[in-house]
Amino acid sequence: MSVLKGACIVGQSGGPTSVINASAQGVIETALANENITRVLAAENGILGILEDRIFDCGKEDPREIALLSGTPSSALGSCRYKLKDSDVDDTDYRRILEIFQKYDIRYFFYNGGNDSMDTCNKVSKYMQKVGYECNIIGVPKTIDNDLAGTDHCPGFGSAAKYIATSVAEVSLDAIAYGTNAPIVIFEIMGRNAGWLTAAAHLANVIGEGPDLEYLPEVPFSVDQFLADVDRVRAEKGKCIVAVSEGVHDAEGNFISELGSNLAQTKDAFGHSQMGGLAGTLANLVKDHTGLKVRGIELSLLQRCAAHCASGTDLAEAYEVGKQAVLAATNGETDKMMALRRADSEDYRCDVVAVPLAEAANAERTVPVEWMNDAHNEMTDEFVKYCLPLIQGPTLQKTENGLPRFAHLRKEHA
Amino acid sequence: MSVLKGACIVGQSGGPTSVINASAQGVIETALANENITRVLAAENGILGILEDRIFDCGKEDPREIALLSGTPSSALGSCRYKLKDSDVDDTDYRRILEIFQKYDIRYFFYNGGNDSMDTCNKVSKYMQKVGYECNIIGVPKTIDNDLAGTDHCPGFGSAAKYIATSVAEVSLDAIAYGTNAPIVIFEIMGRNAGWLTAAAHLANVIGEGPDLEYLPEVPFSVDQFLADVDRVRAEKGKCIVAVSEGVHDAEGNFISELGSNLAQTKDAFGHSQMGGLAGTLANLVKDHTGLKVRGIELSLLQRCAAHCASGTDLAEAYEVGKQAVLAATNGETDKMMALRRADSEDYRCDVVAVPLAEAANAERTVPVEWMNDAHNEMTDEFVKYCLPLIQGPTLQKTENGLPRFAHLRKEHA
Repeated sequence: MSVLKGACIVGQSGGPTSVINASAQGVIETALANENITRVLAAENGILGILEDRIFDCGKEDPREIALLSGTPSSALGSCRYKLKDSDVDDTDYRRILEIFQKYDIRYFFYNGGNDSMDTCNKVSKYMQKVGYECNIIGVPKTIDNDLAGTDHCPGFGSAAKYIATSVAEVSLDAIAYGTNAPIVIFEIMGRNAGWLTAAAHLANVIGEGPDLEYLPEVPFSVDQFLADVDRVRAEKGKCIVAVSEGVHDAEGNFISELGSNLAQTKDAFGHSQMGGLAGTLANLVKDHTGLKVRGIELSLLQRCAAHCASGTDLAEAYEVGKQAVLAATNGETDKMMALRRADSEDYRCDVVAVPLAEAANAERTVPVEWMNDAHNEMTDEFVKYCLPLIQGPTLQKTENGLPRFAHLRKEHA
Repeated sequence: MSVLKGACIVGQSGGPTSVINASAQGVIETALANENITRVLAAENGILGILEDRIFDCGKEDPREIALLSGTPSSALGSCRYKLKDSDVDDTDYRRILEIFQKYDIRYFFYNGGNDSMDTCNKVSKYMQKVGYECNIIGVPKTIDNDLAGTDHCPGFGSAAKYIATSVAEVSLDAIAYGTNAPIVIFEIMGRNAGWLTAAAHLANVIGEGPDLEYLPEVPFSVDQFLADVDRVRAEKGKCIVAVSEGVHDAEGNFISELGSNLAQTKDAFGHSQMGGLAGTLANLVKDHTGLKVRGIELSLLQRCAAHCASGTDLAEAYEVGKQAVLAATNGETDKMMALRRADSEDYRCDVVAVPLAEAANAERTVPVEWMNDAHNEMTDEFVKYCLPLIQGPTLQKTENGLPRFAHLRKEHA
């Protein structure tokens, strides 16, 4: 393991979260204080910023603004969705990345993202090794989806989970205000293949205001069973709150949301095609089936950027994986992703460890079906035991004029 | 003015808010401490609970739970939407109300709601005067819509405004993460005839992350002008965030949301009719017009029950109107609504005053068009000056397990 001296660069990629900037803050503040790192650079819009030489110097930023990153949602450095080709097929991008790394003498590369980003990290790392350019490359995990392999959970998930559970509890309480006229409420929650966020809605049951029914993409969705479940719950409890993943599909793998958007073939009053949407589709089904008032609520982008409701635990862990990435890299580690390993202790604790990038790259971790009840329409206490610690701790967000005070970066070209 | 001795009853009506229970807490705690009030009763589901004798004794509730009402959204007493007939036409309900008032020796009636509820208050008050039953009746204002006449603003509005401005700012930041690929985002916000809540989204501009376009029902909505506005903004700023009231309509008064739901005549894959929805309708229009990525986000029920993001100022004022209602009534006032009057001072301050119920009943206060720019697609600083003080101050909410700790009432029948 060789200890390198040179510049570092940090980038963000994929969908933003409420705490991805806390990881960036962890990387930047730790790197600025490290003697082996001569210059702390950031790429705008991830790997695209490297390819296009849109690179700024974090050393020229106001440290007070850097310190505000933890309370700032979205990707402050700018994000991208860009998949690198295999270098054997086409190494154009790789040669350009090498050129930029050489131009700025970049010896450390920290990439903050999900499994696609870990794949990018892995490919760049392999290429640099092949051409013999010394550069330590560490992946910093983030995703609200919690589907990243190799880690107990993923920074970003806890805050989305806290917002979802809180919002579902509030709306559930609102729905029962009218007593026997309580509307049926259906929440559409993010998660194409992994139902972690829909499962998180179940946490609201800890305070007695959670969903009555929960449907994840891990198990096939039956419209008839769903309607029967709603009938039963409504009759038993006089109310019915449903949480469902955007990615639920039938046994043949057809997305239920797309059954809805077949009506998309039809045109609206303006002659434009109509978008689908799972919440609306299911709300229509239940409305026509029960004749009752139904509300379909899509949490949409709100659930991944609600920094005003972030989890203190998530914020701390997001910062820590960024910090530990720098310490590991300057310690000679490369080709790794920082991961959270839960300690086998009474009280919740997670340690940050380094795992091979290949372990995380492109793998997808789904919700264990054993954590669902036999009917596969509700999470069990096993899941609560796993998830509840992740939403603990107050949000740390500076406010100004009654609104969040977000970080403002100058982004002066390096 | 006669000072009465007897029981009081409090009820809630209409759509819940994040702080309506703070008003209930103000009424209950003040009434429990008042020597002229022999018993503090609450009606379940408002006037319906009185008609159906679903009445519970607040004196039997745990004071610690009463104290948690301020951090509890929805209507903790239960709400209703029930319009009393004119007593000249049919006085059945009124005779029943009198019967219940006599049964419990109710001499004070506090009704917490919007303009319909003030109308109910007013009708009951008139009837009791007609039949000579001594009972002091005071309306306690609430509505997120802020359309209640006779008051500077309405408890419930400030908290909804804070949540909307905060959420719009967070999502705006999220949208620009992808730089030139920033999606156009359209927020559908509550407000059928009054655009106060959509206007409140403009407050996010105070921190530089607000909507670029704002459309209120106070002015006719032109689809062509809207699309032209979006084109211009997207070209100028490389992004476009839109806030629009659910009630926007064209010059002929046709709701734009219904233009959307004409496609509702069509059937979906299940053969069920399709719901409309303004956000989806406008998102489709913009998507087809620009070919860009568009997100339609309906804030739906979230905006009226987000107690986790309530305004401290709103909470304090909501409690105070409840408290002052009891003090006014036991002081001999009747047939009034408590209102907020803004002091003509440098720093924001509101006094609580009593105004005639008739002033508030059924009247609807809309947004002054002078507070919009000439193009009528953005609010001006005049509005910011009015609205910004209303979202100040931190939320006071107890938490448990990282989630809100809501009040739990036993509701033992009186």
